[in-house]
Amino acid sequence: MTNLSQIRPRMLMGPGPSDVNPRVLEAMARPTIGHLDPQFLEILNDIRTMLQAVFKTSNKLTLAVSGCGSAGMEACVVNLIEPGDKMLVCVAGVFGARMKDVAERAGADVTAISVPWGQVFTADEIAEAIRDDGPFKVVGIVHAETSTGAAQPVETISRVVHDSGGLLLLDTVTSLAGMPVEVDGWNVDACYSGTQKCLSCPPGLSPVTFSAAAEDVIANRATKVASWYLDMSMIRQYWGSERLYHHTAPINMNYALHEALRIVLEEGLPARWERHARRHEALKSGLEARGFRYLADPEHQLPMLNAVALPDGLDEASLRKRLLDEFAIEVGAGLGEYKGKAWRIGLMGESATEKHVNGLLSALDAVLP
Amino acid sequence: MTNLSQIRPRMLMGPGPSDVNPRVLEAMARPTIGHLDPQFLEILNDIRTMLQAVFKTSNKLTLAVSGCGSAGMEACVVNLIEPGDKMLVCVAGVFGARMKDVAERAGADVTAISVPWGQVFTADEIAEAIRDDGPFKVVGIVHAETSTGAAQPVETISRVVHDSGGLLLLDTVTSLAGMPVEVDGWNVDACYSGTQKCLSCPPGLSPVTFSAAAEDVIANRATKVASWYLDMSMIRQYWGSERLYHHTAPINMNYALHEALRIVLEEGLPARWERHARRHEALKSGLEARGFRYLADPEHQLPMLNAVALPDGLDEASLRKRLLDEFAIEVGAGLGEYKGKAWRIGLMGESATEKHVNGLLSALDAVLP
Repeated sequence: MTNLSQIRPRMLMGPGPSDVNPRVLEAMARPTIGHLDPQFLEILNDIRTMLQAVFKTSNKLTLAVSGCGSAGMEACVVNLIEPGDKMLVCVAGVFGARMKDVAERAGADVTAISVPWGQVFTADEIAEAIRDDGPFKVVGIVHAETSTGAAQPVETISRVVHDSGGLLLLDTVTSLAGMPVEVDGWNVDACYSGTQKCLSCPPGLSPVTFSAAAEDVIANRATKVASWYLDMSMIRQYWGSERLYHHTAPINMNYALHEALRIVLEEGLPARWERHARRHEALKSGLEARGFRYLADPEHQLPMLNAVALPDGLDEASLRKRLLDEFAIEVGAGLGEYKGKAWRIGLMGESATEKHVNGLLSALDAVLP
Repeated sequence: MTNLSQIRPRMLMGPGPSDVNPRVLEAMARPTIGHLDPQFLEILNDIRTMLQAVFKTSNKLTLAVSGCGSAGMEACVVNLIEPGDKMLVCVAGVFGARMKDVAERAGADVTAISVPWGQVFTADEIAEAIRDDGPFKVVGIVHAETSTGAAQPVETISRVVHDSGGLLLLDTVTSLAGMPVEVDGWNVDACYSGTQKCLSCPPGLSPVTFSAAAEDVIANRATKVASWYLDMSMIRQYWGSERLYHHTAPINMNYALHEALRIVLEEGLPARWERHARRHEALKSGLEARGFRYLADPEHQLPMLNAVALPDGLDEASLRKRLLDEFAIEVGAGLGEYKGKAWRIGLMGESATEKHVNGLLSALDAVLP
């Protein structure tokens, strides 16, 4: 039986979870209270206000779904989609492919377009897909593709989606709080994230936000949402002033998110974005000097997720294991097309520090031949 | 902005969450590590082993779903049901009605039978429903109905379900670890629970277990599970030896469950069941002496959930508020048919102590006219 007091801490530099600030762990360990306790309802109000600030939105329907980032993805899809609805999914990696799968299970009539791994879509390509196979009720895309390290140009894509009368569904699991995300500025209709990336909170909740247009679509559905657990028409009545019981909220996880959001806003979003960019540049120089090769289009490289091919002839799995065993540094394996060929090195939230960058580069100097 | 360090602790005597042992809060605050870290995978193995002990099963497919109890309900339903499958749902309160809703959303051809609130089904009634409208692929029932405080006689019901060739789906959200639950002994095919009741862990995870027969049904589905997030055919490959990434597990919540399960097994299930029964008897005497009236059939009264009508002429909401504000004691409001008429008083896990019983009775003496 594992003795939890003997867990060896790690420097978390994979695709998430990232390192968690001790303040967040301390918050999570506060006494559990009831999900209808006025004290807890105030905490939910705080979380909504802080999520609005981090998402840069005034959307009223902004809350934390009681599940991981993929539950947030499913929540956005199943609330907007009814069986037979047309949806365009833009696939540029594993998480775009996941969204396609989720949409098909929800009964959407899915058209998928794709670009090679590491590349991004142009607004023209989206417009062409809409012209050829649309119009679509929903267009879904992953802002920061965690499997490739590339950022999609959301703002221009949003324009063509809205010109066609569609709703834009955006995955910001990896990008939120680590680079600019502008839900209102970009006119995003449904947006979800995860807690364990640049928010540096343990995994377990998924912040989501819905525009007024998305709320209208939800309010005017002809069919019930396929998932009871993720049905926003009910969940909104718990987070809203009605305070109707839906499910028992994960109390202590919400404490953790509350504290993590406070830390993000204390630092300030522009400073936080700049810190992620700066640490990324330092890591990139160091990795390239050591023979690693970035896999994403350089113009669209994410700061917080670095997908890199190892120098020729190295076995990624054994080196990754040595980093973990000898240096307690976790980096992520490649996923999908990059499996066995690449690492995904995260610089997310509390893990985007000089100490992390230098720690990893020094460890690499010790383990590389 | 709420200062989390100033949260006023409560004595949690509602329908859950229950009081959490400080050991569990401490475990939850251990450093977050990765979801594929060998240390964490050992913790998952431990959790499976301990859940098997608590569910009293040797089912291989036993794990904690990354969501609250209602996510576990949905996970059981959507994995067993394909669109058009016939399902019988036995409704004896709010949570049976919820299961019916979940099953309908999953596309089941649902037959629902009901008994008056506080009553239980007989095996004959289930047999009759099966004869009239069956056979059913799945029969779903809530063991301990949290809205009424009545326990259904699962063992005899299980026999008629299996005689008809159906699968038995059982909700043990409120009963698990507070009264006998025998997944193998009762031949239950799919069973889910929640962490925040008699396991006395914060809410956020849902223990589930599936029999070999249920596993066969899942393996031989013609259609994909409607929910990607809850698809056991993928989740089992993360909890199993394949360790395939599905979604990022809620790391720290699993630490908490690990410690909560250790505490349950240290006490031992029979001792724990007996403790719940003993505290219930003391509470019952005290409440009845003060003019409260139990609402469930006395033969089937749950120990851990006491649904009681208040003495005539009392306003339940204002008295409940006084208990919370003046004594920091939380009891639950009535749900559904009992809304405004009853309280639901929980004696669950760490909240099933002499201190809780006496604390509540003393507080009542102070606030009752």
